[in-house]
Amino acid sequence: MGNSANNTVLSFGEVMLRLSPSDKRQLRQDNTLEYYFGGTELNVAASLAVLGEPTRYVSQVSDDFVGEAALASIRSYGIDAQYINKTKHPLGLYFLEVGSGMRPSRISYNRLHGAFSHIAPKAVNWKEALRGCSHLHWTGITPGISEGAYETLKAGLEQAKKQGITVSADPAYRSNLWKYGKEGDKILKELTGLSTIFIGGVNEINELLKTDFEFSKEGFIAASKALIKACPRIEKVFDKVRTGLSASWQKIYAQAWTGKAYLRTQELEISDVVDRIGTGDAYAAGVIYGLRHFDDQKTLEFANAACGIKHTILGDANLASVAEIEEVASGNTGGRIKR
Amino acid sequence: MGNSANNTVLSFGEVMLRLSPSDKRQLRQDNTLEYYFGGTELNVAASLAVLGEPTRYVSQVSDDFVGEAALASIRSYGIDAQYINKTKHPLGLYFLEVGSGMRPSRISYNRLHGAFSHIAPKAVNWKEALRGCSHLHWTGITPGISEGAYETLKAGLEQAKKQGITVSADPAYRSNLWKYGKEGDKILKELTGLSTIFIGGVNEINELLKTDFEFSKEGFIAASKALIKACPRIEKVFDKVRTGLSASWQKIYAQAWTGKAYLRTQELEISDVVDRIGTGDAYAAGVIYGLRHFDDQKTLEFANAACGIKHTILGDANLASVAEIEEVASGNTGGRIKR
Amino acid sequence: MGNSANNTVLSFGEVMLRLSPSDKRQLRQDNTLEYYFGGTELNVAASLAVLGEPTRYVSQVSDDFVGEAALASIRSYGIDAQYINKTKHPLGLYFLEVGSGMRPSRISYNRLHGAFSHIAPKAVNWKEALRGCSHLHWTGITPGISEGAYETLKAGLEQAKKQGITVSADPAYRSNLWKYGKEGDKILKELTGLSTIFIGGVNEINELLKTDFEFSKEGFIAASKALIKACPRIEKVFDKVRTGLSASWQKIYAQAWTGKAYLRTQELEISDVVDRIGTGDAYAAGVIYGLRHFDDQKTLEFANAACGIKHTILGDANLASVAEIEEVASGNTGGRIKR
Amino acid sequence: MGNSANNTVLSFGEVMLRLSPSDKRQLRQDNTLEYYFGGTELNVAASLAVLGEPTRYVSQVSDDFVGEAALASIRSYGIDAQYINKTKHPLGLYFLEVGSGMRPSRISYNRLHGAFSHIAPKAVNWKEALRGCSHLHWTGITPGISEGAYETLKAGLEQAKKQGITVSADPAYRSNLWKYGKEGDKILKELTGLSTIFIGGVNEINELLKTDFEFSKEGFIAASKALIKACPRIEKVFDKVRTGLSASWQKIYAQAWTGKAYLRTQELEISDVVDRIGTGDAYAAGVIYGLRHFDDQKTLEFANAACGIKHTILGDANLASVAEIEEVASGNTGGRIKR
Amino acid sequence: MGNSANNTVLSFGEVMLRLSPSDKRQLRQDNTLEYYFGGTELNVAASLAVLGEPTRYVSQVSDDFVGEAALASIRSYGIDAQYINKTKHPLGLYFLEVGSGMRPSRISYNRLHGAFSHIAPKAVNWKEALRGCSHLHWTGITPGISEGAYETLKAGLEQAKKQGITVSADPAYRSNLWKYGKEGDKILKELTGLSTIFIGGVNEINELLKTDFEFSKEGFIAASKALIKACPRIEKVFDKVRTGLSASWQKIYAQAWTGKAYLRTQELEISDVVDRIGTGDAYAAGVIYGLRHFDDQKTLEFANAACGIKHTILGDANLASVAEIEEVASGNTGGRIKR
Amino acid sequence: MGNSANNTVLSFGEVMLRLSPSDKRQLRQDNTLEYYFGGTELNVAASLAVLGEPTRYVSQVSDDFVGEAALASIRSYGIDAQYINKTKHPLGLYFLEVGSGMRPSRISYNRLHGAFSHIAPKAVNWKEALRGCSHLHWTGITPGISEGAYETLKAGLEQAKKQGITVSADPAYRSNLWKYGKEGDKILKELTGLSTIFIGGVNEINELLKTDFEFSKEGFIAASKALIKACPRIEKVFDKVRTGLSASWQKIYAQAWTGKAYLRTQELEISDVVDRIGTGDAYAAGVIYGLRHFDDQKTLEFANAACGIKHTILGDANLASVAEIEEVASGNTGGRIKR
Repeated sequence: MGNSANNTVLSFGEVMLRLSPSDKRQLRQDNTLEYYFGGTELNVAASLAVLGEPTRYVSQVSDDFVGEAALASIRSYGIDAQYINKTKHPLGLYFLEVGSGMRPSRISYNRLHGAFSHIAPKAVNWKEALRGCSHLHWTGITPGISEGAYETLKAGLEQAKKQGITVSADPAYRSNLWKYGKEGDKILKELTGLSTIFIGGVNEINELLKTDFEFSKEGFIAASKALIKACPRIEKVFDKVRTGLSASWQKIYAQAWTGKAYLRTQELEISDVVDRIGTGDAYAAGVIYGLRHFDDQKTLEFANAACGIKHTILGDANLASVAEIEEVASGNTGGRIKR
Repeated sequence: MGNSANNTVLSFGEVMLRLSPSDKRQLRQDNTLEYYFGGTELNVAASLAVLGEPTRYVSQVSDDFVGEAALASIRSYGIDAQYINKTKHPLGLYFLEVGSGMRPSRISYNRLHGAFSHIAPKAVNWKEALRGCSHLHWTGITPGISEGAYETLKAGLEQAKKQGITVSADPAYRSNLWKYGKEGDKILKELTGLSTIFIGGVNEINELLKTDFEFSKEGFIAASKALIKACPRIEKVFDKVRTGLSASWQKIYAQAWTGKAYLRTQELEISDVVDRIGTGDAYAAGVIYGLRHFDDQKTLEFANAACGIKHTILGDANLASVAEIEEVASGNTGGRIKR
Repeated sequence: MGNSANNTVLSFGEVMLRLSPSDKRQLRQDNTLEYYFGGTELNVAASLAVLGEPTRYVSQVSDDFVGEAALASIRSYGIDAQYINKTKHPLGLYFLEVGSGMRPSRISYNRLHGAFSHIAPKAVNWKEALRGCSHLHWTGITPGISEGAYETLKAGLEQAKKQGITVSADPAYRSNLWKYGKEGDKILKELTGLSTIFIGGVNEINELLKTDFEFSKEGFIAASKALIKACPRIEKVFDKVRTGLSASWQKIYAQAWTGKAYLRTQELEISDVVDRIGTGDAYAAGVIYGLRHFDDQKTLEFANAACGIKHTILGDANLASVAEIEEVASGNTGGRIKR
Repeated sequence: MGNSANNTVLSFGEVMLRLSPSDKRQLRQDNTLEYYFGGTELNVAASLAVLGEPTRYVSQVSDDFVGEAALASIRSYGIDAQYINKTKHPLGLYFLEVGSGMRPSRISYNRLHGAFSHIAPKAVNWKEALRGCSHLHWTGITPGISEGAYETLKAGLEQAKKQGITVSADPAYRSNLWKYGKEGDKILKELTGLSTIFIGGVNEINELLKTDFEFSKEGFIAASKALIKACPRIEKVFDKVRTGLSASWQKIYAQAWTGKAYLRTQELEISDVVDRIGTGDAYAAGVIYGLRHFDDQKTLEFANAACGIKHTILGDANLASVAEIEEVASGNTGGRIKR
Repeated sequence: MGNSANNTVLSFGEVMLRLSPSDKRQLRQDNTLEYYFGGTELNVAASLAVLGEPTRYVSQVSDDFVGEAALASIRSYGIDAQYINKTKHPLGLYFLEVGSGMRPSRISYNRLHGAFSHIAPKAVNWKEALRGCSHLHWTGITPGISEGAYETLKAGLEQAKKQGITVSADPAYRSNLWKYGKEGDKILKELTGLSTIFIGGVNEINELLKTDFEFSKEGFIAASKALIKACPRIEKVFDKVRTGLSASWQKIYAQAWTGKAYLRTQELEISDVVDRIGTGDAYAAGVIYGLRHFDDQKTLEFANAACGIKHTILGDANLASVAEIEEVASGNTGGRIKR
Repeated sequence: MGNSANNTVLSFGEVMLRLSPSDKRQLRQDNTLEYYFGGTELNVAASLAVLGEPTRYVSQVSDDFVGEAALASIRSYGIDAQYINKTKHPLGLYFLEVGSGMRPSRISYNRLHGAFSHIAPKAVNWKEALRGCSHLHWTGITPGISEGAYETLKAGLEQAKKQGITVSADPAYRSNLWKYGKEGDKILKELTGLSTIFIGGVNEINELLKTDFEFSKEGFIAASKALIKACPRIEKVFDKVRTGLSASWQKIYAQAWTGKAYLRTQELEISDVVDRIGTGDAYAAGVIYGLRHFDDQKTLEFANAACGIKHTILGDANLASVAEIEEVASGNTGGRIKR
């Protein structure tokens, strides 16, 4: 990792504690909970750190032993945690009951009054925090949490624009957020306007633009063009398409519109899902890594493989190395033991 | 749950402690055992309680801390446990080694001298116990355990008949029971004669009537008719058909003879079985719930979906809610995360 | 338990999820958390239920699978849970790092926006909820959580007063509560005025009355008299005195002012504390049980023994039976195996 | 171990599965149970095998995967298991809730219809089983289980008498046994009459002889003399005296009557008991080992130290080596790390 | 097992401690490691012992509590461990991260300076160790560890040749061994020359003979003939062919050249692999068992079924019984519960 | 932590994986091992990082997933890990069986061919590694591991001397090291000659100087003076004195010779030791922290309290904060819960 000058990827968002019963049990059946620290933007930073990229995470955590443990987890990846604030509010968290087969996973959140929800623009000196950075990543979760989170993010995006650095947007819209009085679609469109890479597809674009492009190659191309028209800083659109046969068996492929061409990958099949959480974040990290090292087609394949392999890894973060992901991307999925 | 007047489902049978090594280990490999309290009739009561039905369990448990823990578990579902006796004999139990793929699960019982085997008719005041009940459920396990269990059950069925309430029979025949000198088929036929709903198929009817109907739609219809002829209180026959590709991969569908029509469901496929125990009990509970809320076709689909989803849930009891089961019954088995 | 007419103890308060690393680890060292459902007023109800008293718990929990698990836990004790509301807010919870020796336990709360904090008087029909009750128990935690909790409690106390039933008050003052703009001492004094039994000592009375009685037998007697003067419905004062040699080694004795006489017990010594949480609640439950079954001296000894034995039991609730507590109260603390 | 000609210690008795919640939990609080295979006579054999003595265990276990696991455990110590029968009855077992401080441990047995209870004299060819043996050990548990167990043991003792080998008797009387119609005291006296070493004290002798010698040095000497008079094959009496300050804190010393002299040891103190089960068996194994290697005084000290150190070891069997026991016997109890 | 004269299978090789995070976690995610004692040649001995064959294991382990635990594990199977040496070097071990789906398992070894690597010919008196043996099994791992291991093995093979007993060779070549200056192919050819049964296929033969037969039925037959020409003591060649769809989904079949005929089995499919380690060893044990009890075709089917069922069993050793393997070999893979 | 200019503490030594059975089990009783990354010099760095000091660790770890996990653990404390090398040798490790009461803990090492043992002077550019450092810490373990480790350390000490920074020496002599042909006492004396703070007492000085000062205040003063005479760069000597009542019950106090005065602390008593490992390292870290923030008397009391509190914390590293240690140092050891 080291002191890579002007090369750091900054990610901004919440840190959450994930709590789940072991072995696909339900909460009422167990007496212990496994835990991981995650959160969609942190997962992206963690994946990139494991891939060897210099990364920085900006956030706000609780000023107690829970927040201390969160920081220890973040630092363990080699992520630069010096711009993470502490505050006298409890850390956001969620409970996860892991599904199986025809039984879906269930999540129950406790985040709307958490440490991160109390963040405000003055908590982050973006000029300092973005020093040495060439990429900023954000998702639609953050502006949905609280007005302060939205404003803090917006300040960061404006500073990033000033510095002319790459900004990737993953505008995940969640209906159980946006409780503070703003309309999600308007804000997401505003923030996407400040970004250069869009990680999403027909669904996300339809929500943003209030359109109804159809789910097909043609629909994706048309939607991408419409998005770029509406948000002209966007240069490329990276999407992944998931087919859920059951909670345990999923298929994924990726497609992109590069501004000039449509690209797509083969479909990967995961017949025994170990962990569904964070697979989209692994994809986003794969896109960001690829943009920094590969051409667009290889980026897409790398990101899809990263997403696929994440389904086999417990926890929020993708722990796969570049070599492991490239092996899957090259079609080697037979799982032969590495001695 | 509350005090639903005259609406309670009563289930009668053993309470057993299930002990199994974790993670599909064999007993000789482990040093801890996971445990659940179950038993086929209790599983039915627990499923119904989770579905929101008022339920009562009648049984006899050990008068020690094991029995106390059994009661705590039963009460946790909201089941009315006030008619459960205590006795100075150890609780029945079984060891389970969970199989996988081509390796079958193995069960070893320790129940033939257990607390429930010592039950006798005087232990249950059936008139009181059946107060407020509109349904009684029993299985063929109970009369196979001991003469006292048989006689206590029979007394209950006779009281139920007097009250004119619905009686569902799941006449599971187990060759490792019936050690006390009675012939299983005769007694099961006698008790089925006191019942109104039969939960079983060609196999169970052949055992009861000493016939050999074949395994087909036609065989099932013919067998059902023969059963109703022999036991004329029986109104409907609900069956499920299982195909085991391996211990981990099963297919199930359900069929019924309503006295007038043959019904059946689509086949459900479970490619990654979490727990095979109690899937038949989940089906029975689904039938009972359906009879109280749905028409016969929807009952059958609900029961089949309940059985299917139970394969994904650890422990003896089906913890799925009505909404979760209906979602599967409606064909939504893609396992998308519920946030 | 059964339907003991007019004999039920009602307890009112929060339900919290307690989360703690195993084996005295710190949160940053572990990846699993043990959990229990508790809360000071629930602990009292649970202890009384285990002692065989009919009990009812009134509260408000989250309308999700966490709240469902809380209800299962509450019902498992045999507590009547029918007056527990559900609401669309997450369940209150706390993290506990268990101390040892000279290292104190640490607690971090996440409760101020929890399900119970949103309770309001209209959520509880006290006339119905108190039907069949002869005792109501409350603590100073509840009015400290939110104005709604305070008002709901007050409505209950007024209804109890109308019914003329016994009301026990454990006015635990916690400085990390009372964030909603009320002064704790005034409210606690008001609510104590509606109560008949005071569970507390010099410390609690000094906080309530803004006095500074000293910590001695004489101080306790004087403080008790002053309290009864200020709150003339109070009939008796039950106190326990703890000496902490370390987090693992504690000594306790109990004292009381009966309105007429000073009573006290021998000191009990716990040299290997298993769980400190809930020991005060075990004492309160012991007092309530004693008041219903014993004279004052035996009540005091029973409550002190209950408190002592709770130090040896994991979790929030005291699981000791009447016989086990009486054995300790009678001086038999040698720990000989019961076969 | 190897093929030590004519030097084997044979122990005869039940094999039981011990099941206990972890971390001093109660059964109703947990969802896993730790297990060990033990049983008082097996514990003696296991201790002796760990000490390096050639040992053989004669018993009857269940013919299922539980019995198979029991055999694996027995063989793991290096015990010769070839004379252990299999039978179609479940293995005996017990549940243990581990106490702490003033809370006693609780045990609930399920053994009276277990595999060993069905043993009968024809199951053991004692002539063959005792080939190469110089010592036979038995306890009063065995004849208390069933008539068949009593008769099988008696046949063994008579064969041992013929061969003139040492026979040690630990006549533990348990009131929850002896359900098959025999009087324990008479049978224990008869069997002690066939033995040469008595492991017990005033309590055990009073039960055997219906006397009431007092608990003192003088009482012990007088009782020992009376026993030798009544059972003249007995040569020496080895006793240990336990003072329980609590379930977690115990003191022990040992005393002996050698036929000529009274011997006793210093008192050992265990302030943090890890496991109380099997401490008496560790003492018995220490006596047997000592008789084969040391003089009487050293035997007594070795046995007392073995008993003491067993309190610090989980499970039924004493895993301490000769060197470790001798270190404690020599007064080195400071617990300095061995690197 | 007992003292089966002249009928013992001796296996010679390392004992290793296998350490792996639970539940398919990676090492950096966990804080506990599951462990098993194994090693390819020990796995063969353990499988044969479970199948009921008299077995002996010859090895060298550490003279500490790790080695003591290894011996306990070995003895637990009923394996004769009396010829296992102890030495003042740590036991060899490896870390295993269990893969899933497209993520391969990873192994990291710590064995090259382990207890077994220091073995030397004088450590084993082969004449004594081979007394009563009719079969010796070795693998190519052993001579790859150290020169001493190679020479000790060679001495054993020469003694076996003198006694004219069957010798099975599993010449697994591992590129991460052979660090001590010898060429693997030459040594493996030399040692295969002292053997009578070859367990391997085209791959192994190509490595041994520096040939490049192709992967087909014809290639296998030609390779087998070439091997027998080069190593004329070899009588039969038993091979298994694996197709890895992923780390979790594998297909296997077996083929053999009996010197006269080509044989092969049906393909078995394992869609939910529990443990990949030791599946080849289960095959080898199946071959050895078959050679002693069945004809060649049944041997091949038995060995293939043993290999298949091992994929469903945690740990290094195959714990399946003869009956269980025969059931799979006969095509019964539906996984119906055994009660 | 941040970028504290010229203020970093550098520690140099091995990273080891500690593996121990849970709950004071022995290795042969368990099937899982808890693990921590530690090592005496790393423990000092970790403690200092938790106390808020900028720290850097210099070492060499394995180039595999074990080494990767070690790095994650080191980074989690906020330690600067950029000067840690990777090499193709397995990470050093040790097995620990945790003792209790009169049963000592046992350790078995596997380190002599580990990654760190292969370190050589060229692996560390000390000029770079010491940039920004004001303190270097070493112990006598490092030069005992291998000649390369000795030489690498010596090069670091010489560079530190050039920079004139503080050097603390903890010359722990271990007889199971020093296998590579050097005499420990000579080398330790040479390296102490390059140091300025000595952390040790009569025992360590006697080993270094081949003297035999007695264990008393006077002996300590005389020994300290002799040491300073022999190694005149040494300015102060900090010692701690331990009395082990048992493995679970320890007493400690600290004493120092400041060159001018003798200082000592009160004795702390730990009656329920949670973890003995790393208590000396916690003391050393306390000394180093004190030297940077306090006067000598407060340093001594802080270091003794740090040592005391470490006995209550699982794992190798002291996780106590400055405030927690100061509270103990000020005599507040009653263990009252922190809410």
